[in-house]
Amino acid sequence: MRKIKITGCAAVLPDGGKVKFGSQTRYRLQKGQTLLDLAERAAMGALCDAGLDIREIDLIIAGMATPLQAIPCNAALIHERIAKGTDIPAMDINTSCTSFITAFDMAAYLTDSGRYKNILIVSGDTASAALNPKQRESYELFSDAAAAFVVSGTDEDSGVLFAAQKTWSEGAHDTEIRGGCALESAFEMNEENRDDYYFDMKGLRVLRLCAHNLPSFFEKSIKSSGMSFDDIALVIPHQASKALGYIMPRLGIGKDKYIDRVKDYGNMISASVPFMLCAAIHENKIRHGDNVMLTGTAAGLTCNILIFRY
Amino acid sequence: MRKIKITGCAAVLPDGGKVKFGSQTRYRLQKGQTLLDLAERAAMGALCDAGLDIREIDLIIAGMATPLQAIPCNAALIHERIAKGTDIPAMDINTSCTSFITAFDMAAYLTDSGRYKNILIVSGDTASAALNPKQRESYELFSDAAAAFVVSGTDEDSGVLFAAQKTWSEGAHDTEIRGGCALESAFEMNEENRDDYYFDMKGLRVLRLCAHNLPSFFEKSIKSSGMSFDDIALVIPHQASKALGYIMPRLGIGKDKYIDRVKDYGNMISASVPFMLCAAIHENKIRHGDNVMLTGTAAGLTCNILIFRY
Repeated sequence: MRKIKITGCAAVLPDGGKVKFGSQTRYRLQKGQTLLDLAERAAMGALCDAGLDIREIDLIIAGMATPLQAIPCNAALIHERIAKGTDIPAMDINTSCTSFITAFDMAAYLTDSGRYKNILIVSGDTASAALNPKQRESYELFSDAAAAFVVSGTDEDSGVLFAAQKTWSEGAHDTEIRGGCALESAFEMNEENRDDYYFDMKGLRVLRLCAHNLPSFFEKSIKSSGMSFDDIALVIPHQASKALGYIMPRLGIGKDKYIDRVKDYGNMISASVPFMLCAAIHENKIRHGDNVMLTGTAAGLTCNILIFRY
Repeated sequence: MRKIKITGCAAVLPDGGKVKFGSQTRYRLQKGQTLLDLAERAAMGALCDAGLDIREIDLIIAGMATPLQAIPCNAALIHERIAKGTDIPAMDINTSCTSFITAFDMAAYLTDSGRYKNILIVSGDTASAALNPKQRESYELFSDAAAAFVVSGTDEDSGVLFAAQKTWSEGAHDTEIRGGCALESAFEMNEENRDDYYFDMKGLRVLRLCAHNLPSFFEKSIKSSGMSFDDIALVIPHQASKALGYIMPRLGIGKDKYIDRVKDYGNMISASVPFMLCAAIHENKIRHGDNVMLTGTAAGLTCNILIFRY
């Protein structure tokens, strides 16, 4: 077990940004707000929950899917908001929608080895910055949100028990924003390629790739972990889409075992997993000693599975 | 010591992209080339140098400063070029110009713990995609390049002896590209804010912030490492600018001790450190058993110091 414990967390939504699509609730940043505002509120909330001052943090990790600027990295811009005047190191770890899981996974090496005592992980994205009104499937699915965790070294019996990731790049272009960065810069935008600068999702292709690859990855992972689903108290999956209810049973995860709040929050990209994990903690859905699985698929196509003892 | 050894490396420049500014040589991607072409060549070169097939790689890390697309992460797009059809996990680790050092640092936890045997780290950026012809200082400084390393678990006496990072976000906007991503999307570009979408560097401010913070960070780091500069065979600094010759002596690093090829290659962003490390290995400037320091400043402002036994 790689020792790490959750010391505090917070999850935030944009002020006044609630929108409805039929029975589905989504959240959108309002004019004048940026993701940095949400990230700052989430980070400060997590610090408060942990009872720590920013000066007690040894590393800031941005576990986000999308860049705020092409340079510098997101963590440096968050640092400017919450840690200016300190010399706390800042880094980005990015596996798209599962960035929080990967960041938590890597953070456990840093706490377990004693490299750092307290690490602040901040996740969040603003899908709304690039949603295409013409692509209803994605336009009505995503929400803007942020969530943050303080994780710490510990002598207690809590830590990462198992972690694995796979990437199948046949799906690299099934969920993407082609334009705006190095491959197709903002200067190249014209009337014909304008849609390239919007988020583009081929939902059915993603679902097929997941259905093809996930069952064997889950089966092998559970086997490698030496556990069964009976040993896991709760599964916190990325809130990818309404297909969650279709995919989870095929992975051997029963309805009472996982969180599905897609109806209430939509896909919050990198914030989905930490948002739901934080809610589960604050709603006492998990207790110390419980084994919890974080999992999700991400643009790439990537899938992460991480089991930790809370 | 966190056990890790260098199994292979390669460094590549754009075909036919040599440009001269007075005595300074720089490299630029030519029309029709992309950073993915360079990244693919570097990755395949590193695999060849290591005598490994891509199927023997357990993780692909993109240690790059700038995003190729806003989604998915760079590593997934590199995966598509070199590992399509495999399920090798792919992740980005980003601390801007020092991303390779951070990726190497994190990789050493993964090899040392036995999580992964062989890790491919790919670095590289295309400054030229965003250089502003009106800002001569940066326009004439940067080069496009890529470099890749295969690093592996080992029973030999090689690994990371010391690593530290600091970020001072007073410098977050001294080196940046403000536009193109979430904070100022491509859709928002107009005649007035067009310069925001170019790379913008305030060289003198960066230099002042470095001169203020680096000496004490180096002094403390060397002390914490339990070494002196006499124990270090070679320092490979990020090729930030011509100011290298001004900064290095102030950090206690003599002229014969570090690599300065700014005249020949310029600042290759995240490729600078791995490019020079690979050259030092292939030119037999370092030998097995030597202690080598990788260091550099990055947009953020971030500084990394890593000492490893080769």
